[in-house]
Amino acid sequence: MLRLRPATRADVPLILSLIRELATYERDPAAVVATEEALARDGFGERPLFQVTIAEWSGTPVGFAFWFFAYSTWRGQPTLYLEDLFVRPEARGRGIGKEMMRYLARTALDTGCGRFVWQVLDWNSPSIEFYESLGAQVVHEWLTCRLDGEALRALAGR
Amino acid sequence: MLRLRPATRADVPLILSLIRELATYERDPAAVVATEEALARDGFGERPLFQVTIAEWSGTPVGFAFWFFAYSTWRGQPTLYLEDLFVRPEARGRGIGKEMMRYLARTALDTGCGRFVWQVLDWNSPSIEFYESLGAQVVHEWLTCRLDGEALRALAGR
Repeated sequence: MLRLRPATRADVPLILSLIRELATYERDPAAVVATEEALARDGFGERPLFQVTIAEWSGTPVGFAFWFFAYSTWRGQPTLYLEDLFVRPEARGRGIGKEMMRYLARTALDTGCGRFVWQVLDWNSPSIEFYESLGAQVVHEWLTCRLDGEALRALAGR
Repeated sequence: MLRLRPATRADVPLILSLIRELATYERDPAAVVATEEALARDGFGERPLFQVTIAEWSGTPVGFAFWFFAYSTWRGQPTLYLEDLFVRPEARGRGIGKEMMRYLARTALDTGCGRFVWQVLDWNSPSIEFYESLGAQVVHEWLTCRLDGEALRALAGR
Protein backbone atom coordinates (compact mmCIF):
# COMPACT_ATOMS: atom_id res chain seq x y z
CA MET A 1 0.00 0.00 0.00
CA LEU A 2 3.00 2.30 0.61
CA ARG A 3 4.56 4.09 -2.33
CA LEU A 4 7.52 6.45 -2.10
CA ARG A 5 8.09 8.74 -5.07
CA PRO A 6 10.10 11.86 -5.96
CA ALA A 7 8.04 15.05 -5.78
CA THR A 8 7.44 17.15 -8.88
CA ARG A 9 6.61 20.83 -9.24
CA ALA A 10 2.90 19.91 -9.11
CA ASP A 11 3.46 18.75 -5.52
CA VAL A 12 4.54 22.19 -4.25
CA PRO A 13 1.18 23.00 -2.57
CA LEU A 14 1.24 19.56 -0.89
CA ILE A 15 4.84 20.07 0.23
CA LEU A 16 4.05 23.45 1.78
CA SER A 17 1.03 21.92 3.51
CA LEU A 18 3.17 19.11 4.95
CA ILE A 19 5.82 21.63 6.10
CA ARG A 20 3.03 23.55 7.91
CA GLU A 21 1.62 20.36 9.43
CA LEU A 22 5.08 19.49 10.76
CA ALA A 23 5.44 22.99 12.24
CA THR A 24 1.99 22.74 13.82
CA TYR A 25 2.92 19.33 15.24
CA GLU A 26 6.03 20.98 16.71
CA ARG A 27 3.72 23.75 18.05
CA ASP A 28 5.35 26.51 16.04
CA PRO A 29 3.09 27.03 12.97
CA ALA A 30 3.86 30.78 12.79
CA ALA A 31 7.53 29.95 12.12
CA VAL A 32 6.71 28.87 8.55
CA VAL A 33 7.19 31.83 6.21
CA ALA A 34 8.01 29.69 3.14
CA THR A 35 5.78 30.27 0.10
CA GLU A 36 4.82 28.09 -2.86
CA GLU A 37 6.73 30.48 -5.12
CA ALA A 38 9.95 30.07 -3.11
CA LEU A 39 9.69 26.27 -3.00
CA ALA A 40 8.94 26.04 -6.73
CA ARG A 41 11.88 28.33 -7.58
CA ASP A 42 14.41 26.69 -5.24
CA GLY A 43 13.43 23.04 -5.67
CA PHE A 44 12.15 22.65 -9.20
CA GLY A 45 14.17 25.02 -11.37
CA GLU A 46 17.38 24.43 -13.30
CA ARG A 47 19.52 23.99 -10.20
CA PRO A 48 17.39 22.41 -7.49
CA LEU A 49 18.61 23.20 -3.99
CA PHE A 50 16.67 20.31 -2.45
CA GLN A 51 14.77 17.09 -3.18
CA VAL A 52 11.46 15.91 -1.75
CA THR A 53 10.23 12.35 -1.41
CA ILE A 54 6.45 11.91 -1.03
CA ALA A 55 4.97 8.95 0.86
CA GLU A 56 1.54 7.79 -0.34
CA TRP A 57 -0.64 5.12 1.26
CA SER A 58 -3.13 3.68 -1.23
CA GLY A 59 -2.75 6.85 -3.28
CA THR A 60 -3.21 9.31 -0.38
CA PRO A 61 -0.23 11.48 0.66
CA VAL A 62 0.75 10.59 4.23
CA GLY A 63 4.21 12.07 4.68
CA PHE A 64 7.37 13.50 3.17
CA ALA A 65 11.14 13.64 3.41
CA PHE A 66 12.88 16.90 2.50
CA TRP A 67 16.60 16.49 1.78
CA PHE A 68 19.62 17.85 -0.09
CA PHE A 69 23.26 17.14 -0.72
CA ALA A 70 25.86 18.40 1.73
CA TYR A 71 29.55 17.57 1.21
CA SER A 72 32.32 15.95 3.24
CA THR A 73 35.75 17.45 2.49
CA TRP A 74 37.65 14.69 4.24
CA ARG A 75 35.82 11.96 2.34
CA GLY A 76 35.58 13.82 -0.96
CA GLN A 77 32.00 12.58 -1.21
CA PRO A 78 28.53 14.09 -1.01
CA THR A 79 26.48 13.55 2.14
CA LEU A 80 22.72 13.04 2.03
CA TYR A 81 21.33 15.58 4.52
CA LEU A 82 17.75 15.02 5.71
CA GLU A 83 16.20 18.33 6.75
CA ASP A 84 12.61 17.22 7.49
CA LEU A 85 10.90 13.85 7.90
CA PHE A 86 7.18 13.79 8.68
CA VAL A 87 4.40 11.20 8.74
CA ARG A 88 0.86 12.47 9.28
CA PRO A 89 -0.38 11.42 12.75
CA GLU A 90 -3.26 9.35 11.37
CA ALA A 91 -0.83 7.25 9.30
CA ARG A 92 1.62 6.39 12.07
CA GLY A 93 2.33 2.90 13.37
CA ARG A 94 2.61 1.37 9.90
CA GLY A 95 6.41 1.56 9.61
CA ILE A 96 6.27 4.43 7.09
CA GLY A 97 9.02 6.44 8.80
CA LYS A 98 11.34 3.44 8.84
CA GLU A 99 10.57 2.68 5.20
CA MET A 100 11.40 6.28 4.29
CA MET A 101 14.70 6.09 6.16
CA ARG A 102 15.53 2.84 4.27
CA TYR A 103 14.65 4.54 0.98
CA LEU A 104 16.90 7.49 1.82
CA ALA A 105 19.76 5.13 2.80
CA ARG A 106 19.46 3.44 -0.61
CA THR A 107 19.26 6.85 -2.30
CA ALA A 108 22.43 7.93 -0.46
CA LEU A 109 24.33 4.88 -1.73
CA ASP A 110 22.89 5.25 -5.26
CA THR A 111 24.03 8.89 -5.47
CA GLY A 112 27.58 8.23 -4.28
CA CYS A 113 27.09 9.58 -0.75
CA GLY A 114 29.37 8.24 1.97
CA ARG A 115 27.12 9.44 4.76
CA PHE A 116 23.48 10.08 5.66
CA VAL A 117 23.02 12.88 8.22
CA TRP A 118 20.18 14.66 10.06
CA GLN A 119 19.52 16.37 13.37
CA VAL A 120 17.28 15.62 16.34
CA LEU A 121 16.31 17.67 19.42
CA ASP A 122 18.11 16.44 22.53
CA TRP A 123 14.84 16.07 24.51
CA ASN A 124 13.16 13.97 21.80
CA SER A 125 13.92 10.56 23.31
CA PRO A 126 11.46 8.53 21.19
CA SER A 127 13.07 9.83 17.99
CA ILE A 128 16.59 9.29 19.33
CA GLU A 129 15.68 5.69 20.20
CA PHE A 130 14.11 5.18 16.76
CA TYR A 131 17.20 6.52 14.99
CA GLU A 132 19.54 4.44 17.13
CA SER A 133 17.44 1.36 16.32
CA LEU A 134 18.24 2.08 12.65
CA GLY A 135 21.97 1.98 13.44
CA ALA A 136 22.53 5.76 13.57
CA GLN A 137 25.17 7.32 15.76
CA VAL A 138 24.01 10.35 17.79
CA VAL A 139 26.87 12.83 18.00
CA HIS A 140 27.02 15.06 21.07
CA GLU A 141 30.33 16.91 20.59
CA TRP A 142 29.47 18.98 17.52
CA LEU A 143 27.49 22.15 18.25
CA THR A 144 25.68 24.10 15.56
CA CYS A 145 26.47 27.83 15.18
CA ARG A 146 23.99 30.16 13.49
CA LEU A 147 23.87 33.71 12.24
CA ASP A 148 20.66 35.19 10.91
CA GLY A 149 18.56 38.36 10.92
CA GLU A 150 20.20 41.46 12.36
CA ALA A 151 23.34 39.61 13.50
CA LEU A 152 23.96 38.33 9.95
CA ARG A 153 23.48 41.80 8.47
CA ALA A 154 25.76 43.32 11.12
CA LEU A 155 28.61 40.92 10.31
CA ALA A 156 28.12 41.66 6.61
CA GLY A 157 28.30 45.38 7.41
CA ARG A 158 24.80 46.10 6.09
CA MET B 1 47.31 42.61 1.29
CA LEU B 2 44.39 40.18 1.80
CA ARG B 3 42.43 39.02 -1.20
CA LEU B 4 39.48 36.62 -1.09
CA ARG B 5 38.49 35.00 -4.37
CA PRO B 6 36.33 32.10 -5.60
CA ALA B 7 38.36 28.96 -6.36
CA THR B 8 38.51 27.57 -9.89
CA ARG B 9 39.21 24.05 -11.11
CA ALA B 10 42.92 24.98 -11.29
CA ASP B 11 42.87 25.36 -7.49
CA VAL B 12 41.91 21.72 -6.84
CA PRO B 13 45.47 20.62 -5.83
CA LEU B 14 45.68 23.65 -3.49
CA ILE B 15 42.23 22.86 -2.02
CA LEU B 16 43.18 19.24 -1.32
CA SER B 17 46.43 20.41 0.26
CA LEU B 18 44.54 22.84 2.53
CA ILE B 19 42.04 20.10 3.47
CA ARG B 20 45.01 17.90 4.46
CA GLU B 21 46.66 20.71 6.40
CA LEU B 22 43.43 21.25 8.35
CA ALA B 23 43.21 17.52 9.11
CA THR B 24 46.86 17.48 10.21
CA TYR B 25 46.18 20.51 12.43
CA GLU B 26 43.29 18.55 13.94
CA ARG B 27 45.72 15.60 14.35
CA ASP B 28 43.78 13.30 12.04
CA PRO B 29 45.60 13.44 8.66
CA ALA B 30 44.76 9.80 7.81
CA ALA B 31 41.04 10.70 7.81
CA VAL B 32 41.39 12.50 4.48
CA VAL B 33 40.55 10.10 1.66
CA ALA B 34 39.35 12.81 -0.76
CA THR B 35 41.15 12.90 -4.13
CA GLU B 36 41.74 15.66 -6.68
CA GLU B 37 39.51 13.76 -9.10
CA ALA B 38 36.59 13.70 -6.64
CA LEU B 39 36.91 17.40 -5.78
CA ALA B 40 37.17 18.41 -9.45
CA ARG B 41 34.12 16.31 -10.35
CA ASP B 42 31.95 17.39 -7.42
CA GLY B 43 32.91 21.06 -7.20
CA PHE B 44 33.71 22.18 -10.73
CA GLY B 45 31.37 20.28 -13.04
CA GLU B 46 27.94 21.22 -14.36
CA ARG B 47 26.25 20.96 -10.97
CA PRO B 48 28.75 22.00 -8.30
CA LEU B 49 27.99 20.48 -4.90
CA PHE B 50 30.17 23.02 -3.09
CA GLN B 51 31.99 26.34 -3.37
CA VAL B 52 35.47 27.25 -2.18
CA THR B 53 36.81 30.69 -1.27
CA ILE B 54 40.60 31.08 -1.32
CA ALA B 55 42.38 33.61 0.93
CA GLU B 56 45.63 35.04 -0.44
CA TRP B 57 48.04 37.34 1.36
CA SER B 58 50.19 39.30 -1.09
CA GLY B 59 49.50 36.61 -3.67
CA THR B 60 50.31 33.61 -1.44
CA PRO B 61 47.47 31.24 -0.48
CA VAL B 62 46.98 31.35 3.29
CA GLY B 63 43.58 29.76 3.87
CA PHE B 64 40.24 28.65 2.55
CA ALA B 65 36.52 28.40 3.24
CA PHE B 66 34.62 25.37 1.93
CA TRP B 67 30.84 25.86 1.81
CA PHE B 68 27.60 24.88 0.11
CA PHE B 69 23.90 25.67 0.14
CA ALA B 70 21.64 23.90 2.60
CA TYR B 71 17.93 24.76 2.76
CA SER B 72 15.47 25.89 5.43
CA THR B 73 11.96 24.52 4.84
CA TRP B 74 10.33 26.85 7.38
CA ARG B 75 11.95 29.91 5.85
CA GLY B 76 11.72 28.79 2.23
CA GLN B 77 15.25 30.11 1.78
CA PRO B 78 18.69 28.63 1.20
CA THR B 79 21.15 28.54 4.09
CA LEU B 80 24.87 29.12 3.59
CA TYR B 81 26.55 26.14 5.28
CA LEU B 82 30.25 26.49 6.07
CA GLU B 83 31.89 23.06 6.18
CA ASP B 84 35.55 24.04 6.66
CA LEU B 85 37.35 27.27 7.52
CA PHE B 86 41.15 27.21 7.79
CA VAL B 87 43.95 29.77 8.02
CA ARG B 88 47.50 28.47 7.81
CA PRO B 89 49.21 28.77 11.21
CA GLU B 90 51.91 31.14 9.93
CA ALA B 91 49.27 33.59 8.68
CA ARG B 92 47.23 33.83 11.87
CA GLY B 93 46.74 36.97 13.96
CA ARG B 94 46.03 39.17 10.95
CA GLY B 95 42.24 38.98 11.13
CA ILE B 96 41.99 36.71 8.08
CA GLY B 97 39.45 34.35 9.68
CA LYS B 98 37.21 37.25 10.67
CA GLU B 99 37.48 38.75 7.19
CA MET B 100 36.49 35.41 5.66
CA MET B 101 33.47 35.18 7.97
CA ARG B 102 32.45 38.72 6.93
CA TYR B 103 32.87 37.77 3.27
CA LEU B 104 30.69 34.68 3.77
CA ALA B 105 28.03 36.74 5.59
CA ARG B 106 27.91 39.10 2.59
CA THR B 107 27.81 36.11 0.22
CA ALA B 108 24.90 34.65 2.20
CA LEU B 109 22.89 37.86 1.84
CA ASP B 110 23.86 38.24 -1.84
CA THR B 111 22.64 34.71 -2.64
CA GLY B 112 19.28 35.06 -0.87
CA CYS B 113 20.22 33.01 2.19
CA GLY B 114 18.35 33.74 5.42
CA ARG B 115 20.92 32.02 7.57
CA PHE B 116 24.65 31.25 7.82
CA VAL B 117 25.40 27.99 9.66
CA TRP B 118 28.43 25.91 10.68
CA GLN B 119 29.50 23.55 13.46
CA VAL B 120 32.12 23.70 16.21
CA LEU B 121 33.46 21.07 18.62
CA ASP B 122 32.09 21.60 22.14
CA TRP B 123 35.60 21.60 23.70
CA ASN B 124 36.93 24.23 21.28
CA SER B 125 36.44 27.24 23.56
CA PRO B 126 38.63 29.70 21.60
CA SER B 127 36.60 29.07 18.43
CA ILE B 128 33.29 29.28 20.31
CA GLU B 129 34.36 32.63 21.79
CA PHE B 130 35.46 33.85 18.35
CA TYR B 131 32.15 32.87 16.77
CA GLU B 132 30.14 34.44 19.59
CA SER B 133 32.16 37.65 19.16
CA LEU B 134 30.87 37.69 15.56
CA GLY B 135 27.29 37.57 16.85
CA ALA B 136 26.69 33.84 16.27
CA GLN B 137 24.34 31.83 18.43
CA VAL B 138 25.71 28.46 19.60
CA VAL B 139 22.88 25.94 19.66
CA HIS B 140 23.10 23.11 22.18
CA GLU B 141 19.73 21.36 21.78
CA TRP B 142 20.14 20.00 18.25
CA LEU B 143 22.16 16.78 18.04
CA THR B 144 23.58 15.44 14.79
CA CYS B 145 22.70 11.87 13.74
CA ARG B 146 24.89 9.97 11.29
CA LEU B 147 24.80 6.77 9.33
CA ASP B 148 27.78 5.64 7.30
CA GLY B 149 29.82 2.57 6.36
CA GLU B 150 28.36 -0.79 7.34
CA ALA B 151 25.41 0.76 9.23
CA LEU B 152 24.34 2.73 6.15
CA ARG B 153 24.58 -0.34 3.94
CA ALA B 154 22.65 -2.43 6.49
CA LEU B 155 19.74 0.05 6.59
CA ALA B 156 19.73 0.11 2.79
CA GLY B 157 19.60 -3.71 2.80
CA ARG B 158 22.88 -4.11 0.90
